[in-house]
Amino acid sequence: MSRAMGLAGLLAGLFLVPAVLVSTSFRHDAPRTEPAPEPAEWEPPSGPEDSLWPLPQGLRTSGRQLQLAPGRFQLVHGAGSSAGPRCGLLQDAFRRYYEYMFGQSLRRSWGYRPFGPRAEAELSHLQVVIESRDPGCDSHPHLGSSEAYQLTVIAPVATLKADEVWGALRGLETFSQLVHEDDYGSFLVNESEIYDFPRFAHRGILLDTSRHYLPLKSILTNLDAMAFNKFNVLHWHIVDDQSFPYQSICFPELSDKGAYSYNHIYTPTDVRLVIEYARLRGIRVIPEFDTPGHTQSWGKGQKDLLTPCYNGEKPSGSFGPVNPILNTTYDFMTKFFKEISSVFPDAYIHLGGDEVDFNCWKSNPEVQEFMKKQGLGSDYAKLESYYIQKILDIVSSYNKGYMVWQEVFDNKAKLKPDTVVEVWMERNYAYELSNVTGAGFTAILAAPWYLDYISYGQDWRKYYSVEPLNFSGSEKQKKLLIGGEACLWGEFVDATNLTPRLWPRASAVGERLWSSRNVTNLQDAYRRLTNHRCRMLRRGIAAEPVFVGYCAHEARGQ
Amino acid sequence: MSRAMGLAGLLAGLFLVPAVLVSTSFRHDAPRTEPAPEPAEWEPPSGPEDSLWPLPQGLRTSGRQLQLAPGRFQLVHGAGSSAGPRCGLLQDAFRRYYEYMFGQSLRRSWGYRPFGPRAEAELSHLQVVIESRDPGCDSHPHLGSSEAYQLTVIAPVATLKADEVWGALRGLETFSQLVHEDDYGSFLVNESEIYDFPRFAHRGILLDTSRHYLPLKSILTNLDAMAFNKFNVLHWHIVDDQSFPYQSICFPELSDKGAYSYNHIYTPTDVRLVIEYARLRGIRVIPEFDTPGHTQSWGKGQKDLLTPCYNGEKPSGSFGPVNPILNTTYDFMTKFFKEISSVFPDAYIHLGGDEVDFNCWKSNPEVQEFMKKQGLGSDYAKLESYYIQKILDIVSSYNKGYMVWQEVFDNKAKLKPDTVVEVWMERNYAYELSNVTGAGFTAILAAPWYLDYISYGQDWRKYYSVEPLNFSGSEKQKKLLIGGEACLWGEFVDATNLTPRLWPRASAVGERLWSSRNVTNLQDAYRRLTNHRCRMLRRGIAAEPVFVGYCAHEARGQ
Repeated sequence: MSRAMGLAGLLAGLFLVPAVLVSTSFRHDAPRTEPAPEPAEWEPPSGPEDSLWPLPQGLRTSGRQLQLAPGRFQLVHGAGSSAGPRCGLLQDAFRRYYEYMFGQSLRRSWGYRPFGPRAEAELSHLQVVIESRDPGCDSHPHLGSSEAYQLTVIAPVATLKADEVWGALRGLETFSQLVHEDDYGSFLVNESEIYDFPRFAHRGILLDTSRHYLPLKSILTNLDAMAFNKFNVLHWHIVDDQSFPYQSICFPELSDKGAYSYNHIYTPTDVRLVIEYARLRGIRVIPEFDTPGHTQSWGKGQKDLLTPCYNGEKPSGSFGPVNPILNTTYDFMTKFFKEISSVFPDAYIHLGGDEVDFNCWKSNPEVQEFMKKQGLGSDYAKLESYYIQKILDIVSSYNKGYMVWQEVFDNKAKLKPDTVVEVWMERNYAYELSNVTGAGFTAILAAPWYLDYISYGQDWRKYYSVEPLNFSGSEKQKKLLIGGEACLWGEFVDATNLTPRLWPRASAVGERLWSSRNVTNLQDAYRRLTNHRCRMLRRGIAAEPVFVGYCAHEARGQ
Repeated sequence: MSRAMGLAGLLAGLFLVPAVLVSTSFRHDAPRTEPAPEPAEWEPPSGPEDSLWPLPQGLRTSGRQLQLAPGRFQLVHGAGSSAGPRCGLLQDAFRRYYEYMFGQSLRRSWGYRPFGPRAEAELSHLQVVIESRDPGCDSHPHLGSSEAYQLTVIAPVATLKADEVWGALRGLETFSQLVHEDDYGSFLVNESEIYDFPRFAHRGILLDTSRHYLPLKSILTNLDAMAFNKFNVLHWHIVDDQSFPYQSICFPELSDKGAYSYNHIYTPTDVRLVIEYARLRGIRVIPEFDTPGHTQSWGKGQKDLLTPCYNGEKPSGSFGPVNPILNTTYDFMTKFFKEISSVFPDAYIHLGGDEVDFNCWKSNPEVQEFMKKQGLGSDYAKLESYYIQKILDIVSSYNKGYMVWQEVFDNKAKLKPDTVVEVWMERNYAYELSNVTGAGFTAILAAPWYLDYISYGQDWRKYYSVEPLNFSGSEKQKKLLIGGEACLWGEFVDATNLTPRLWPRASAVGERLWSSRNVTNLQDAYRRLTNHRCRMLRRGIAAEPVFVGYCAHEARGQ
């Protein structure tokens, strides 16, 4: 596109063609004096989309730049919007994004630079128009929420249109990514037209607060980073064998005895804060209460919940998975999940169901007896399914959907049609996706994105190069894969290293789940990711470097 | 040793037997109710040496505990010490260690707990006695400095004896590690007797400030962590291909043009600050100015320094290593290293000499001509040696010793007898150590400790399990291995992730280089390292977790 091409031409373009970006070589690998690659005619070599992440589905920019004056520029509700100043979610987002765009400039001793002799027209407003009758200001995002938006940047007023506030949040992030500060302290944005929507509806980050407790602040910082990368699900793996930091209202002993200490607990207030902070950023919070395995910490505060293991004819003193043969177990779970269903507003609860070790069950004579009585023979996977089935039924009775790890499907539990099966085993995950979707179930892919596994170098490229739909199946099956999750298990992660270990590596997953399937160029992604990472740094996220180099804002002394 | 055994018995013991510590299983791997292993009779199961790191050479503790009152306890100069209140280095260390021991308590709203009904005697002072006539207060540590110390903790006054201040610094660290706070806010220390000295004289950390600039604060924080781990050399890989942050007094253009930006520079004041901060902690600063390779950034600010590469008969426009055939090169290097010799007080400068790519030299007709004239044939390793030889001679003329990477030795440069050869290539490093020491040169081992290479899990165990003297050679050769370095190259490391990536992984190297050869028990090391890491956290070092769990001070709300 030539720079002279007007906005009419811009608007007339098809929006669904992903932007073709100029490729560059790494700044520091190439010999110092190697000529830069030829930029395409229609686009400046260092364009405004140089730092867009994830890349929008449809993007047109012109070479024409507009200026923004931090002292005058406003984010406002547009005429005809169903949301107005009473929409706290948007008001909060306006304030946040204003700060992201101009904050550093406003804190400078010399303030922002008044307009100099530049010729650019001024962009005075971004007006946000929510088109759906119910904008969703006070609701929670859900699997079916619309995150699509359309952004038109022309002087003097830019317009961001979205069906619901969730799309507006995504569009505000994109708008803030388009605005850049030049070396003289001027804020500029290129005339642009963006039409955007996520490729997958479920784009999650798993945090594990059991192996190590994560302070509230770490979780909130991570929610900020998720919003910068258009993630929309916090999968909160809140309890596990090692500790039980969730403070239950009905069963306070669980955390009293099962948390690492009284200072390693999430109170009801903490939990509400996380949910609200996430909601304001368009992020769902799906808690995971994994049973019947991974429950050692539950046993400390709940007598008789776990199976006593036997050594020959005597109890060994140690305990195994949840005891599936006692009525008291199901009485407890009924009350417990009733509480969980009300504390967490999301329509889904993750019920775990992974890695159940059968040895303890096998050792216990009462369990053996029960197996006989129930006609389960010696197939302990069936006992697991028996247990899981009951838990699923309990949770269903509270009108909640559930997510489960793949073993629950593999062991043939009877699942509600809206069950989401999370595929986590690295081996043959494509085959598992085929099977799960082939059986008509919705699936989430986590297997290739276990970010707790680290290795030397730019491993983001590996995460980036995964194509989730590369499994055999019909079009209908492909539609059943609704997204994925980057999982940061906590064995070796706590507040000291969470942020730099997760970001920007998870950003690679973020773009894979949001952008068009054919956005796969690693060189282009490298350039944008490097800039995106610098932007995260500026916004207070200690994201680690992608490779050698430095950030432009540091060179400016910011 | 029985608890009733008096101090006389304690003191009569041989000090060189390393402490045998109780082994435990990991807190979270073992089934919850497994019985704890039987503690040895003479030692409480959770003893005072539970968090000593690195483990002292000789250690005896009694079960008898002494109390310390933060409001009364003092670090003082003992009678007969050659150092007194005018010894700024020790005064500074007293202040620092007082803060490490009691700081958190003093900041608590309820202050420290006054003595309750406990029966422990009070320890009122630690007196420090420097026995050498010149304590070294105003000098810099060097390769031959004594770091040995003897620490006797008995009521009412503990005594720390050392030849020089450097040993006193190590002893203060050890004393501070012995003092612990109980759950009620009391500070306790066990009666102990420690005789300690380092196994190896050179215990270094390499930081790379060229691939990424490290803010001064990151470097200083790292120096703190080094002192906590008894490291004594900061190998400052200050410049490289990517950037030249060292601001030269004689050649300011080098950083003006070669640094990432004017904000990515170490001024002379910065450099002096690093050196002084390190000195106060008994840490030498050895700068590395690596030539003739790894010098792309030098070429930006120093015309004609690098070799022009040719493409056939024409210069290609790119540049290779330092140009070894021009007199101007040596004129420059003479002035440059004269400055470096005066800016950095250490007796050694690291001159690099690694990974020289010969292709550019080969392409250049003037270099080819020079080779013929000098009778070097087509052996470019000889040209490298020709260059290095001249640099070595220049640096020698300033009465400095030099360190070099192993290639300089491999290529048969004529080295001064006091040259230190750093072995870095992972393959066959034991063989290389044999060769280097067999030729009579002093060696430093870095090869197994490249901490920029990361992998999943507890890789500290791998670093810990290296035995540096496992190479074939005579006793005399073994003595020539004077230490090692943990290297954190900067391709993927900057201020966002430096600390958690380096610590406590480098602590494993720290103990290997300080403690006795037979301190190799991984279970015991795990327990101590976990506590040591928590102590680093309390002292402001964001060291990453060793494995699952939490820190006791967090449970106390600190």
